[in-house]
Amino acid sequence: MIIYGKNSCKVVLESNIEVSKIYLQEGFSEKEIISLIENKNLKINYLPKNKMNDLADGVHQGIILSIPNYKYMDLDEVLGENKFVVMLDHLEDPHNFGAIVRTCEASGVDAIIIPSDREIEVNPTVVKTSVGTVFQTKIIKVVNLVDTINYLKENGYWIVGTSLEGNLDYREVDYSGNICLIVGNEGKGMSKLVTKNCDYLTKIPMYGETNSLNASVAAGIMIYEVIRNRK
Amino acid sequence: MIIYGKNSCKVVLESNIEVSKIYLQEGFSEKEIISLIENKNLKINYLPKNKMNDLADGVHQGIILSIPNYKYMDLDEVLGENKFVVMLDHLEDPHNFGAIVRTCEASGVDAIIIPSDREIEVNPTVVKTSVGTVFQTKIIKVVNLVDTINYLKENGYWIVGTSLEGNLDYREVDYSGNICLIVGNEGKGMSKLVTKNCDYLTKIPMYGETNSLNASVAAGIMIYEVIRNRK
Repeated sequence: MIIYGKNSCKVVLESNIEVSKIYLQEGFSEKEIISLIENKNLKINYLPKNKMNDLADGVHQGIILSIPNYKYMDLDEVLGENKFVVMLDHLEDPHNFGAIVRTCEASGVDAIIIPSDREIEVNPTVVKTSVGTVFQTKIIKVVNLVDTINYLKENGYWIVGTSLEGNLDYREVDYSGNICLIVGNEGKGMSKLVTKNCDYLTKIPMYGETNSLNASVAAGIMIYEVIRNRK
Repeated sequence: MIIYGKNSCKVVLESNIEVSKIYLQEGFSEKEIISLIENKNLKINYLPKNKMNDLADGVHQGIILSIPNYKYMDLDEVLGENKFVVMLDHLEDPHNFGAIVRTCEASGVDAIIIPSDREIEVNPTVVKTSVGTVFQTKIIKVVNLVDTINYLKENGYWIVGTSLEGNLDYREVDYSGNICLIVGNEGKGMSKLVTKNCDYLTKIPMYGETNSLNASVAAGIMIYEVIRNRK
């Protein structure tokens, strides 16, 4: 995967992500970044601007890194006891995805499940917004969310959805055992079939005029509620 | 304030924000947006592309709205009993600001306090990322955060900071009475002087390799903890 731009590259250089190649534009002189590179003992390849432009498909600000592609995990990785996984039901925004990955890594969620056929995947934006934590997080791509929900159920999971129409306060659910928490799409929430297959439909109470939160904020509140309830 | 681009304008047209003028580029034909405009009974001004470009300072996608500038409130608005305010200690990212505004509106926070001299303010990005809720939220600009903290203390507020060095689990604090919750900068956290003036320094427990959450996610978890504790 190619990462470019000062902010994204700083995130990578400050993390323990393996960097296979570094390209700097001739004359690049940002001290903080150069010192991060020196700390990693990496060889710098200096290139003229036109060669840099050929490598990146956007504004690179004089720095391009090559890092390994993300390796998705297998669903069987999360079978077992007392597992806590988060399923993203067609989330669209890579910023939300990155923020959720970061929350999952910080809170000790075992894995994140995403559908393979749609909008999100581990790309440079997710690397940046997850502050590099995506490489410490197990992410599983599955072909069909409903099939996966049923497979998880067969393997002892309780499926907890979050929905505006939820009939349970999110604080009133027993989150012990194997839990799969589902986070819906930013605009549309969870899809109908996924909703129908949940064991619990929970909601976060709201007291204002708006009836929804940012997807990564709602996920964070739910994830920390599960953690609190299990500890 | 000038708002442009399809997504931002849709947020405004779907909210109850007053729209004073609508400009569409000649030939603009997005049905969903035109029907939103018709629902509001607003007169459309069609302009040629070059006139549209003069009005917007970015990519307008054929639509520009003029809405009232945000009116900041006065600090004395939040004096009283059982108030809950959120202070942002030099937050930088307007996306985080917008997501926090949305959480505050949804959860019934009384007001948000921001410093007047720095990075964030209510701009078109905040209107969009708050999904228009910024116009239902009281935001107060103050010259000096430490002076404001002391003024709030004199008026019966408890000041709760969030910090990696916090010595209190965020679930172990009594949040009754007047509470001012402080959210720090994305990278640096709360400033030293603000930290020194907190009554409580709390932290959200983390179990992974990363030791911090996205600022708007952390704010959401804290805000809902305060709400839960008070209800």
